[in-house]
Amino acid sequence: MSVITIERQILEKNDEIARANRERFERSGIFAINLVSAPGSGKTRILEQCLERLKSRIRICVIEGDVQTDLDAQRVARYDVPVVQIVTRGGCHLEARLVQDALTRLDLAGVQLLVIENVGNLVCPANYDLGEAKKVVVVSTTEGADKPLKYPTMFRNASVLLINKIDLLPYVDCDLSALRENALKINPDLEIFPLSARTGDGMDAWCNWLVEKSVTRR
Amino acid sequence: MSVITIERQILEKNDEIARANRERFERSGIFAINLVSAPGSGKTRILEQCLERLKSRIRICVIEGDVQTDLDAQRVARYDVPVVQIVTRGGCHLEARLVQDALTRLDLAGVQLLVIENVGNLVCPANYDLGEAKKVVVVSTTEGADKPLKYPTMFRNASVLLINKIDLLPYVDCDLSALRENALKINPDLEIFPLSARTGDGMDAWCNWLVEKSVTRR
Repeated sequence: MSVITIERQILEKNDEIARANRERFERSGIFAINLVSAPGSGKTRILEQCLERLKSRIRICVIEGDVQTDLDAQRVARYDVPVVQIVTRGGCHLEARLVQDALTRLDLAGVQLLVIENVGNLVCPANYDLGEAKKVVVVSTTEGADKPLKYPTMFRNASVLLINKIDLLPYVDCDLSALRENALKINPDLEIFPLSARTGDGMDAWCNWLVEKSVTRR
Repeated sequence: MSVITIERQILEKNDEIARANRERFERSGIFAINLVSAPGSGKTRILEQCLERLKSRIRICVIEGDVQTDLDAQRVARYDVPVVQIVTRGGCHLEARLVQDALTRLDLAGVQLLVIENVGNLVCPANYDLGEAKKVVVVSTTEGADKPLKYPTMFRNASVLLINKIDLLPYVDCDLSALRENALKINPDLEIFPLSARTGDGMDAWCNWLVEKSVTRR
């Protein structure tokens, strides 16, 4: 039995559980997103800004994925939304089974939006469907315009691209239009939202998109 | 045969080839570093600054690792140093065997410093020894002070920490002393160099360290 065969079996098993998660979300009218990026792109900061703006408008819960620590779950818990932390203890991505387990610890009644924040990794989470409606990839302006070309699978499998830290554009050598262009070269269907979780710039457009998707689903 | 057993076999096989690489470097008087970080932390930019400063002082060659594209090798080649690009085609880390293969395409006669730039990933490359003398981890100020706590294996296995993008400190919410403290909590032996590959600030101290290590080795 080769390693490649085992990898395929792992992915097939993952896809099977992801399908079950997806059916559950659809049955319950939950819009689920899988938030992915490199470490430090600002996934948690963006999420905090969304919770600040949306927690009185729609019912949200959060699953946090991290290699170690529950620091992110602590940050999210301050906004009084239900949150479960998955610590992978070295694992480089979330899997559908981990999300399935986490769901047993959440009361999903009435929930409209589930945000699953994945492990900070632009490679491995790309191939693991969690059952989400949309994969949302974050890239920050400090990372450079070439990232979609260098990590294409993630950008190909995502539906939405959030370009974070636009407040830093005057201080970094990032060509925003080249970044857009490179992303659309890999995936012409990407919806793109430039924003800054620090200043709040662009956050309203992204939050409105989330509300629209979460409400029309019910 | 379980997946865990196979993983252990892969790591054991990797360590065996890494040992052979290491012996080869030591026999030839080559100081080899394994440069690791999240995507977009500035590994290639730091390397370009080093080449600019060091190529007339010591003999350097480079192995570039990327998931896709040879963009980084093109950048390095401009400095007239021998460079080999490894494209992992989806693979999330370099392995000792890939480095061993790359070495067959390099003329190592007289080489004093070999820089192996790993795939941008703060998780998976942590466990794969390539035969380097030192693992050098880069974190940028834009990524936040919590990264050593959230990705501890990489910081535990590294000997040197480069804190890049210190020019952005006035514009980001990164507490430099907290970042240092978190890194030293995980690994008290880390040598730390704060620098900016953009402005050149701090680059001399880091380059002098590289020269010292590369020259004393011969």
